[in-house]
Amino acid sequence: MSNHRYLEAVDMGIDTHEEPVVYMRKDCDICRAEGFEANTRLLIRHGERNLIATLNTVSESVLPNGGIGFSKSAWRYLGLTAGLEVNISHAPVVQSLSAMRKKIYGNALSETELASIIHDIAERHYSDIEIAAFLTGCAGGRLSLEEIIALTRAMVDSGSRIHWRQYPKVFDKHCVGGLPGNRTTPIVIAIASAAGLTLPKTSSRAITSPAGTADTMEVLTNVDLTLDQMQSVIHQTGACLAWGGRMNLSPVDDLMIRVERALDLDGEGQLVASVLSKKIAAGSTHILIDMPVGPTAKVRDESQARRLADLFHAVGEALDVRVECLTTDGTQTVGDGIGPAEEARDVLAVLRNDPGAPADLRERALLLATHLLVMANGDSYEEAESRTREILETGGAWQQFLRICEAQGGLREIPRAPRQKIFTSERSGRLTTMDNRRLAKLAKLAGAPSSAVAGLRLQAKLGQRLAAGDPLFTLYSDTPGELDYASDFYQSNRDIFEIA
Amino acid sequence: MSNHRYLEAVDMGIDTHEEPVVYMRKDCDICRAEGFEANTRLLIRHGERNLIATLNTVSESVLPNGGIGFSKSAWRYLGLTAGLEVNISHAPVVQSLSAMRKKIYGNALSETELASIIHDIAERHYSDIEIAAFLTGCAGGRLSLEEIIALTRAMVDSGSRIHWRQYPKVFDKHCVGGLPGNRTTPIVIAIASAAGLTLPKTSSRAITSPAGTADTMEVLTNVDLTLDQMQSVIHQTGACLAWGGRMNLSPVDDLMIRVERALDLDGEGQLVASVLSKKIAAGSTHILIDMPVGPTAKVRDESQARRLADLFHAVGEALDVRVECLTTDGTQTVGDGIGPAEEARDVLAVLRNDPGAPADLRERALLLATHLLVMANGDSYEEAESRTREILETGGAWQQFLRICEAQGGLREIPRAPRQKIFTSERSGRLTTMDNRRLAKLAKLAGAPSSAVAGLRLQAKLGQRLAAGDPLFTLYSDTPGELDYASDFYQSNRDIFEIA
Repeated sequence: MSNHRYLEAVDMGIDTHEEPVVYMRKDCDICRAEGFEANTRLLIRHGERNLIATLNTVSESVLPNGGIGFSKSAWRYLGLTAGLEVNISHAPVVQSLSAMRKKIYGNALSETELASIIHDIAERHYSDIEIAAFLTGCAGGRLSLEEIIALTRAMVDSGSRIHWRQYPKVFDKHCVGGLPGNRTTPIVIAIASAAGLTLPKTSSRAITSPAGTADTMEVLTNVDLTLDQMQSVIHQTGACLAWGGRMNLSPVDDLMIRVERALDLDGEGQLVASVLSKKIAAGSTHILIDMPVGPTAKVRDESQARRLADLFHAVGEALDVRVECLTTDGTQTVGDGIGPAEEARDVLAVLRNDPGAPADLRERALLLATHLLVMANGDSYEEAESRTREILETGGAWQQFLRICEAQGGLREIPRAPRQKIFTSERSGRLTTMDNRRLAKLAKLAGAPSSAVAGLRLQAKLGQRLAAGDPLFTLYSDTPGELDYASDFYQSNRDIFEIA
Repeated sequence: MSNHRYLEAVDMGIDTHEEPVVYMRKDCDICRAEGFEANTRLLIRHGERNLIATLNTVSESVLPNGGIGFSKSAWRYLGLTAGLEVNISHAPVVQSLSAMRKKIYGNALSETELASIIHDIAERHYSDIEIAAFLTGCAGGRLSLEEIIALTRAMVDSGSRIHWRQYPKVFDKHCVGGLPGNRTTPIVIAIASAAGLTLPKTSSRAITSPAGTADTMEVLTNVDLTLDQMQSVIHQTGACLAWGGRMNLSPVDDLMIRVERALDLDGEGQLVASVLSKKIAAGSTHILIDMPVGPTAKVRDESQARRLADLFHAVGEALDVRVECLTTDGTQTVGDGIGPAEEARDVLAVLRNDPGAPADLRERALLLATHLLVMANGDSYEEAESRTREILETGGAWQQFLRICEAQGGLREIPRAPRQKIFTSERSGRLTTMDNRRLAKLAKLAGAPSSAVAGLRLQAKLGQRLAAGDPLFTLYSDTPGELDYASDFYQSNRDIFEIA
């Protein structure tokens, strides 16, 4: 029997995020003959590529006869153009789902079983609810150390892997659970590469925050590098500050992290595998983990930090990379700016040793860079620290940062927001708390990160004494509508700042 | 701040099954201002109703400016008509999700916590991946007896509940994990109600099988009854054979079972809560569970059957209903017909005592009816059995079945398929196995259950000696296309029947 039927591809113009969805007419011959209904899982083939998609059935008016519609991610993944014929059949049984169920029923998985699950997720053979079930089955400490190691290895194998043959040691730093404004990375990379370390840094754009490191760096230079361009920048300067989205490093992580975030699960095994797989795929041999600890941070207390650090060390050792973990203060924001342009302004202020540069951002960047130097050379902390301070204070870091930006396409001037509004304290007293989560929301309502100039700049620090009328922060926006919208939000959320 | 924005409702003509999806233009003001993106969870309000839906963003060509599109289930749930204004805001935090995560992390849930989860699922506040995570967290024996009891109670409370005040004992039967063709229900109900028992039987349509009891009964009479109509049928005859879809009995079960089925999870706690919540909501006080045991059935062996029976008893006792479990042979199909009309033909043949009536179907129906009588009257099995045989053999069951059909709208004549084709054995030998799963698929390819006449009729029994050319089965179909399609499938799957 011909198990396979053909229809012509139609771009539906619908973005379902990563979950691939296809649309077929309920009255179409194939649906009727095959018994396809809404939610049936289908195998769609075009040339060498295939994916498994979820079916949505549609009325006659939505699609022409003989057509099959695709969501954006399915369209992209299959590399379609309008009118191409695609082949449709019932999705085969995905074998690794039985391993997934084994995990759900509380059994340990072998390296082969974990590899087959990760392979099938990467090949788009899992639906979102199947990914959700896998992540749930692994949460709550139900992954053993051996399983976390196997998971990390499988995730590394799911994408490209960079080999830096000419560099024996390759460094990276990563922050677990970011604080708003904590934009140390560009400064740390500039200092450590000025000291001779190799740091092919790739970063992500913001997903839920007002700015990711890639968004901030994009204010200052081109970050959209191919792998070849990235390698050329490294050869010239020893470091780069690129967007990682084009590099295909542990791509399966992006598929899983999206579901994990929607469920607000933060399994430690999954976290360690996620971070290390990206870094190992990027060719890092030495990885420094910045772990902010605080009641509203991802890591709540010292005992959780120690448990997580033990896991990082053990998995790193098994995969032949050196990992060091550093616990830092996670109780408040770092730096004064929130949003791509305002965070870039803080970064440049520190690198140029401007007198108004945020001291907390400078000190934290120095701490991290110092630890990288200790890892690299086995120096004492004091020796390494005097070296990093010297590099920053004598302008060595700034010169190095300029070289990196030059190699990536030139330094850009930081744009100014066309609209701004200063908000002041209504009464006098001491500023006792700021709500970081709502500050981040305020910056996003003002338009960050899709508008780079949008965001805010804090003008008061925790513990500071304020008089009524003293400035608290300035809000920046690209459009009057967004400025009003964010202002309205602040008016009904004035308790973001508590003044006692 | 106005957290709420308005757009005009548009029916997208897209069936996403139960998951509610809304469609907004990526370039629309509200998306930009609120930071809505594909996969954002939104609260949609219209009048008194609200639901939480997942956002898909669309291109300008897909929706008019100022419009918001709805999937069919979302449209229905909110009771919308084109052009109505709906109110859109970020979905609030669903509080019970923290209880869900507590379960995922291995903690027991209180009755209140389980009730809040079930309430939120019923109110369409959970996405499919959140339902998947909840079910996964409960699978693998991670629900205690107390939790299963609380879950069942919460599921009963999620919908309507029928109280049969004038009947002290109300009976039901349920089969766990159906075998193809196992259409005992209409016969059992006719016999037991002829013996004076009250049986307000509601059944489902097929979901993955070629026919459900409601599909089969619909060939013979009207099954789409309102609650009032059903009560009137019960008052006239003591029983009914209705479709349960309109009754709103444990509606949350339908939302969960769909996800459970997609994940192929069969948690025992979930199964017990699912079955008992439907029956208790229907007002049953005495429930007989038919548990076919076999290597390809849902219940694999006697020890699993005993464990499940213990759970059924304990939960039944806590909810004040009497439950009896009966293990039956689950190794082969029951009856000769597969598909709505062919199964209806078997049912009538048994009720009318036709000489060619399938003996296995008759004996199994008698067994179940006898057990119901034992439950009802405390008679010995032998007494009850002679009573049920008498009712069937003297035509009492047939007369009672006619009364029920008459009360529901009159007996219909079973239609004949316009197309049929006989398939014969290619060689001589003994018929040793039939693949039930692929026989069901064959019936579905022929058009069952959406075409009631489609299906097949077996003409050989397991163990029977066949000569080459002897008939194996007849295939029935509404259209030449479907007949060809099913025939093609059989040609490449002739090993459905093994003749040694």
